[in-house]
Amino acid sequence: MVDERETRSDTAASTRRQFLVGGAAAGVGAAVGAAVALGVNHAATASTAPGSGAAPMNGAQVVPFYGEHQAGIDTSAQAHSTLVALDLLPEVTRDGLRRLMRILTDDAARLTQGTPALADSEPEMATAPARLTVTFAFGPEFVARSGATAPAWLRPLPAFSIDQLQDAYNDGDLLIQVASDDPVTVAHTVRMLLKDSRSFATVRWQQQGFRAAYGSYRPGTTMRNLFGQVDGTSNPQPGTENFDAVVWSDRGWLAGGTSLVVRRIRMTMDTWDELDRSGREQAVGRTMSNGAPLTGTEEFDEPDFDAKTAIGFPVIPEFSHMHRARGDDPRYPTEQIFRRGYNYDLPPSGAEVSDSGLIFVSYQADVDRQYVPIQQRLADLDLLNQWTIPIGSAVFAVPPGCAEGGYIGESILA
Amino acid sequence: MVDERETRSDTAASTRRQFLVGGAAAGVGAAVGAAVALGVNHAATASTAPGSGAAPMNGAQVVPFYGEHQAGIDTSAQAHSTLVALDLLPEVTRDGLRRLMRILTDDAARLTQGTPALADSEPEMATAPARLTVTFAFGPEFVARSGATAPAWLRPLPAFSIDQLQDAYNDGDLLIQVASDDPVTVAHTVRMLLKDSRSFATVRWQQQGFRAAYGSYRPGTTMRNLFGQVDGTSNPQPGTENFDAVVWSDRGWLAGGTSLVVRRIRMTMDTWDELDRSGREQAVGRTMSNGAPLTGTEEFDEPDFDAKTAIGFPVIPEFSHMHRARGDDPRYPTEQIFRRGYNYDLPPSGAEVSDSGLIFVSYQADVDRQYVPIQQRLADLDLLNQWTIPIGSAVFAVPPGCAEGGYIGESILA
Ligand code: HEM
Ligand code: HEM
Repeated sequence: MVDERETRSDTAASTRRQFLVGGAAAGVGAAVGAAVALGVNHAATASTAPGSGAAPMNGAQVVPFYGEHQAGIDTSAQAHSTLVALDLLPEVTRDGLRRLMRILTDDAARLTQGTPALADSEPEMATAPARLTVTFAFGPEFVARSGATAPAWLRPLPAFSIDQLQDAYNDGDLLIQVASDDPVTVAHTVRMLLKDSRSFATVRWQQQGFRAAYGSYRPGTTMRNLFGQVDGTSNPQPGTENFDAVVWSDRGWLAGGTSLVVRRIRMTMDTWDELDRSGREQAVGRTMSNGAPLTGTEEFDEPDFDAKTAIGFPVIPEFSHMHRARGDDPRYPTEQIFRRGYNYDLPPSGAEVSDSGLIFVSYQADVDRQYVPIQQRLADLDLLNQWTIPIGSAVFAVPPGCAEGGYIGESILA
Repeated sequence: MVDERETRSDTAASTRRQFLVGGAAAGVGAAVGAAVALGVNHAATASTAPGSGAAPMNGAQVVPFYGEHQAGIDTSAQAHSTLVALDLLPEVTRDGLRRLMRILTDDAARLTQGTPALADSEPEMATAPARLTVTFAFGPEFVARSGATAPAWLRPLPAFSIDQLQDAYNDGDLLIQVASDDPVTVAHTVRMLLKDSRSFATVRWQQQGFRAAYGSYRPGTTMRNLFGQVDGTSNPQPGTENFDAVVWSDRGWLAGGTSLVVRRIRMTMDTWDELDRSGREQAVGRTMSNGAPLTGTEEFDEPDFDAKTAIGFPVIPEFSHMHRARGDDPRYPTEQIFRRGYNYDLPPSGAEVSDSGLIFVSYQADVDRQYVPIQQRLADLDLLNQWTIPIGSAVFAVPPGCAEGGYIGESILA
């Protein structure tokens, strides 16, 4: 690997070489030994039967980087995820974009496999990927500078009545999603990628999210958000035909890619707290204890929207989040999205007891056809709106994956 | 437990009862079932032999709450730690402090054992403690209002020439340290404790830190900070006589307690990056690869401060962080501290590529005797100062632990 890297003579490699200083180069060598010295368990095994008392050590587990689709979408969600949106510097042209994406692809391909990046000055911090994935997505400006035609949906979402967007968390030219079960790995990877983006772009915003830690629950357990709700039950399952139809685009340069919508949604914990348990369950249409629909007992039971209470009201309120999100339109099957959000929880300021919420992230082949109608229904009417406020919004096109030797974005930059 | 709680008639219980509303009470019942439904593995086992390929599932692992000392100090450091400093409301008297500490003790005693707090409105979020600990510590104002005599060292540290303190991270009346291997558990616990503190205090500051995740490395592996340094090698080992002598006080109401110094130290990653590997190693006196002293090969080798290079310079620079921190004073054995810090990494603003650093936390029986001389030496001269800036500073007295039925702080509030 080191040899190949040293002899490769494309633009990316020569740009990258300029980062190399004596210390960093020595570091790359040292890291090979470090992987062992650090005690990372390299006998990575893939999965644990639910309910078993032991989980494999997780530090050395890797998710393949190369492939038809980018990793980090159909990857079972890691504990930590950071989204960084960059603004391109004015002078960056199509050639610059290609150079940038070659460098970042190379970094990501190495780091996700537990190998230091080429100019990595802390190579030992690359030795525990813990299922690290790096996913790139393009905003309208990126696609425009590439010269490619953007999908019609690649623009800010329409304004919704519930929105209280703060510019601090909107839009962006290039999105990098870094996710791993280890927060130190996320920190190192983000830093490495930002250092290598520095001559091309500036940071527009960054959002850091978390879910339950690796090892806390049986693998596959649906996450809870900070309201305590089981969140993610009704979601296309990776590996199914339905997932592929919902998520992967088949259009032009985006074929094998998808779209990413990120909404930063503040959850007003203090008023949520005033709501009793039954009110909380009505708001979503599911129980707090295990996320079962109010007409069922188990999390994955199918909801019965026709069931009525003794006095004739629907058991699952018509305006509950679940009912409104699902809709009852015959076109429903086309209005599906794949949700893969993260909690955020920042130090509160002033009289607040919390600054908490959801970094709502969804993937869908077509934003206008799949995401917007759901969001419109929820904006029109959704009991949950009383405790949730969208404060940031962005839409990105996620290009397909690439093969070894290729780079992310080659379908518009090659 | 529920019965005991409902019949207890002390001030704390009656204060706490007022928080109980229908929904929350129902929630406590529901949680008992939830612990199973959620798939938490309750067959917690204590430890894994270094190097073994499997780690026990970690969600249900508990650290005992009651005891001579508070937990969270000699507890092997968890992956996540949040420090919250509170300011007491002006009207809170000694009686109020007692009520507050009884409530918070009760919350902590339950939550750390995987049981919801009494007024917990998200009881299902209490089911995966993942080695949760909650540690309380008192600032000067807290001790003054209790009527007790404060140790002489319970005051802001002397001003050091290197300090660039921002008031945002200084001082405080009551410190709560919440640590767990699961970030969702930390978020829920912090919120629960803040809700229960709300009528007594406001949040002054909050610092969120992280280390390597549970399962990334063999248990017991020394952490790396964001400079990539192995950080924590030369540190008293819990369970040894030396640790007890360094950490636990034997003075008056603090007997069995200790002191906590927290310094928020910004690490200027961008200039650190300009330093080559050998410069980095000289700055500390240890290798980057495995943290061995520059005169040795293994992390725990004893440094040889007399060893000279071929041209007569000390191999471990005289002004290296390790040499300066250790000192060469015959009184050295009394100048020891127990370090248990965490990384922080916030979204950078402006032209910065990072806002990263160390939440330096140390425990020692006596701040003036043990901490201040080390800090003074480092402030006077330490190569590492070029890349580190203390931006926050606080000192707290950590009261001893308590037995079941007691509460933290009883040695000054009973
Ligand atoms: C903070 C904001 C939000 C919270 C707390 C939240 C919470 C939940 C919960 C608890 C469920 C039920 C369990 C599940 O199936 O996952 C759910 C379902 C769902 N949510 Fe949300 N959600 C939020 C925002 C959104 C947004 C912005 C959208 C899309 C515009 C959305 C779309 C959906 C969909 C499609 C379902 C599945 C409905 C079904 O088919 O049953 N949610 N959400
Ligand atoms: C961002 C700031 C700091 C960084 C990055 C840092 C880093 C390190 C590193 C890498 C070591 C060597 C490995 C080890 O034994 O842990 C070390 C040792 C040590 N540091 Fe720090 N440190 C910082 C601040 C401090 C402060 C504020 C103090 C106390 C005032 C301190 C006291 C010590 C002590 C006592 C040792 C052990 C020395 C020995 O006995 O060998 N450090 N530090």
